[in-house]
Amino acid sequence: MPVNLKSPDPKTLLPVPGVTLGTAEANIRKPGRKDLLVIKLDEGARVAGVFTSNRFCAAPVTVAREHLASADARTRALVVNTGCANAGTGSAGLATARQTCAGLARLLDCAPSRVLPFSTGVIMEPLPVEKVVAGLPACLSDLKPDNWFAAAQAIMTTDTLPKAASRRVSVGGRPVTITGIAKGAGMIHPDMATMLGFVACDARISAPLLRAAVAHAAQRSFNSITVDGDTSTNDSFMLIATGKADHPEIATAGSAEYAALVDGVSAVAAELAQAIIRDGEGATKFITIRVEGGTSEAECRKAAYAIAHSPLVKTAFFASDPNLGRILCAVGYAGIGDLDVDKVDLYLDDVLVVKNGGRAETYREADGQRVMKQAELTVRVALNRGAAAATVWTCDLSHEYVTINAEYRT
Amino acid sequence: MPVNLKSPDPKTLLPVPGVTLGTAEANIRKPGRKDLLVIKLDEGARVAGVFTSNRFCAAPVTVAREHLASADARTRALVVNTGCANAGTGSAGLATARQTCAGLARLLDCAPSRVLPFSTGVIMEPLPVEKVVAGLPACLSDLKPDNWFAAAQAIMTTDTLPKAASRRVSVGGRPVTITGIAKGAGMIHPDMATMLGFVACDARISAPLLRAAVAHAAQRSFNSITVDGDTSTNDSFMLIATGKADHPEIATAGSAEYAALVDGVSAVAAELAQAIIRDGEGATKFITIRVEGGTSEAECRKAAYAIAHSPLVKTAFFASDPNLGRILCAVGYAGIGDLDVDKVDLYLDDVLVVKNGGRAETYREADGQRVMKQAELTVRVALNRGAAAATVWTCDLSHEYVTINAEYRT
Repeated sequence: MPVNLKSPDPKTLLPVPGVTLGTAEANIRKPGRKDLLVIKLDEGARVAGVFTSNRFCAAPVTVAREHLASADARTRALVVNTGCANAGTGSAGLATARQTCAGLARLLDCAPSRVLPFSTGVIMEPLPVEKVVAGLPACLSDLKPDNWFAAAQAIMTTDTLPKAASRRVSVGGRPVTITGIAKGAGMIHPDMATMLGFVACDARISAPLLRAAVAHAAQRSFNSITVDGDTSTNDSFMLIATGKADHPEIATAGSAEYAALVDGVSAVAAELAQAIIRDGEGATKFITIRVEGGTSEAECRKAAYAIAHSPLVKTAFFASDPNLGRILCAVGYAGIGDLDVDKVDLYLDDVLVVKNGGRAETYREADGQRVMKQAELTVRVALNRGAAAATVWTCDLSHEYVTINAEYRT
Repeated sequence: MPVNLKSPDPKTLLPVPGVTLGTAEANIRKPGRKDLLVIKLDEGARVAGVFTSNRFCAAPVTVAREHLASADARTRALVVNTGCANAGTGSAGLATARQTCAGLARLLDCAPSRVLPFSTGVIMEPLPVEKVVAGLPACLSDLKPDNWFAAAQAIMTTDTLPKAASRRVSVGGRPVTITGIAKGAGMIHPDMATMLGFVACDARISAPLLRAAVAHAAQRSFNSITVDGDTSTNDSFMLIATGKADHPEIATAGSAEYAALVDGVSAVAAELAQAIIRDGEGATKFITIRVEGGTSEAECRKAAYAIAHSPLVKTAFFASDPNLGRILCAVGYAGIGDLDVDKVDLYLDDVLVVKNGGRAETYREADGQRVMKQAELTVRVALNRGAAAATVWTCDLSHEYVTINAEYRT
């Protein structure tokens, strides 16, 4: 029961010059479903990425990091399989991840380090690399610029709907196309919990600024969502810039062109990340948590995440219960050491519910309940001690979450 | 459905020389139940305490802290009410907390600063202080040394059973009696979520060492349990030493006498804290999480809490599912920056399930399932990088938890 999530209209997914995509059924775990994707890039493309901070990172994450560094981001192709995460598989897992890259590199006649591998699916099981490699030719014969919708479908695991987004922005007066896909549905079936995001654009941008852009966009999207706080072994977000657009290369972080591109990429990434929350396991509500008036963005994020992670707050959202105490309590233990709670205000959408740390005199519970019954709502906390702010997106904690995560094997 | 928790046998609760206790029905929230407790101390007693770290701390916490400091811990009485937490009540709340102390001080003919107030119950509602003060004489006429069981009952809110523990230890060859009570059932009905613990002994101990002892015991008990990670506005743990025992005053932290007392107090406090977990809302399993082989206790606690707080791990416990990936994943994101995951071993009770970061060759899932089906089990993680260790106690995450926390108003 996704919250206000629709399957993207394939016609709205704009091809990105310099990118083709092809999918195949490789029978990696189950027959009869697309489970292999190749994203092929023209020469001249640059790639940058951010990966899971989990110390138990999967073999493909290790190899993708290595290859990004050694090939100086001159990537020719990305290969993504579902069905097996190749995580917790030790040195054998590293070998199969490298064999996957080598297999595709042979077909593309390039160095294996110019291929980046990604996997998602069950963990602690070996990757059936022969099936992956055997499926690659079918992906290559399927390569098309307008294959983004099929690509979004091919990387789904427990997602109930494919996730894709696209937009065109103006950089230095010239059009730049940005299109991306993602997969993830919170930590539903956590053996398949990985969040993957791939966003491509045809912008021309220097390698250092591309790295800055992917970090910025990740912070404003995939690093600002949480279903249950767990971080997977395989999480990856990759940003591709093919350089096919005809604006001058972006080489200055302070430029209007850099800002325009980063805003566009962040918007696409945020739409993808929000789709993951809307598809979160057992989610019945989509909740935006905005903390403002802090002395730093970091402290605002702390408070927002404390609210977003609290099982008590999340069950209250599920119950449509405007439980002010639970929200304030979470702000109180967020770890802002010198917080003056007597200055804190709290809003549910536009309803002022807490003023100066206590129930607002104007507040009537009927107003709070009206907001809490909506499928989408914003919890806004004003710390009233500075000018910084942060936004986090999350969902509620329902019976369905417990059912899915307790009974997924049956 | 508490996990292996029984009501304490009143006969096992040893009176502590210098302490008398009295309870009353003060009708603070509901008629017909004990909701007021006075713990009276003979002259010469010392008190030290630890309080919630939540920035939204309740008025009685603020006043108790002040009084402990200003009266140099020469406390004559503690007063505890249920039914109202006096939290989120601003300056009016501080005034009613002070009036409670003043009311009892008048009856005991002492300075108000020698009374410590504690409250638990609904938050963001004013304390009906006139009812509290009116109930005090009944408490005083009920004062008895062997009233610990009634005291444990009087401080219950959503607890399904009273919580008390007692033991006698030898300090410098002389017997010292330690008896304590606690309340708390996780964050069930979070408006009444407070954890309160009161432990008294007749030891003779200097004020600085008493403060050290309460901090140590808290770390080994109430600060090592978690139901859902939320921290209440009113949490308090107080340690009383009446000085009636006839060993020489403990004045050296390195002494055998100090160690004997702290071990005894920690054991009583741990029994009380574990009773809170056994009574955790919707709990069906009692889980000990032991992380060892760390370079510091702090990093072991980080890993243990990451496991204990993970909704994915907790739902797997509920389902009796030996999901190794979820546990390892939590260790991986615990924030131990330089953790070498290839050295990590994992045991369920005595079953080795993960060796060197991967599934142990000897492991058979039937063995893991057998352990996971038990009502009590130990998850043991060996980081294999140092000599430090930490233990945390928690429970599983069940449908009943969601039901209780989502539907508690209906």
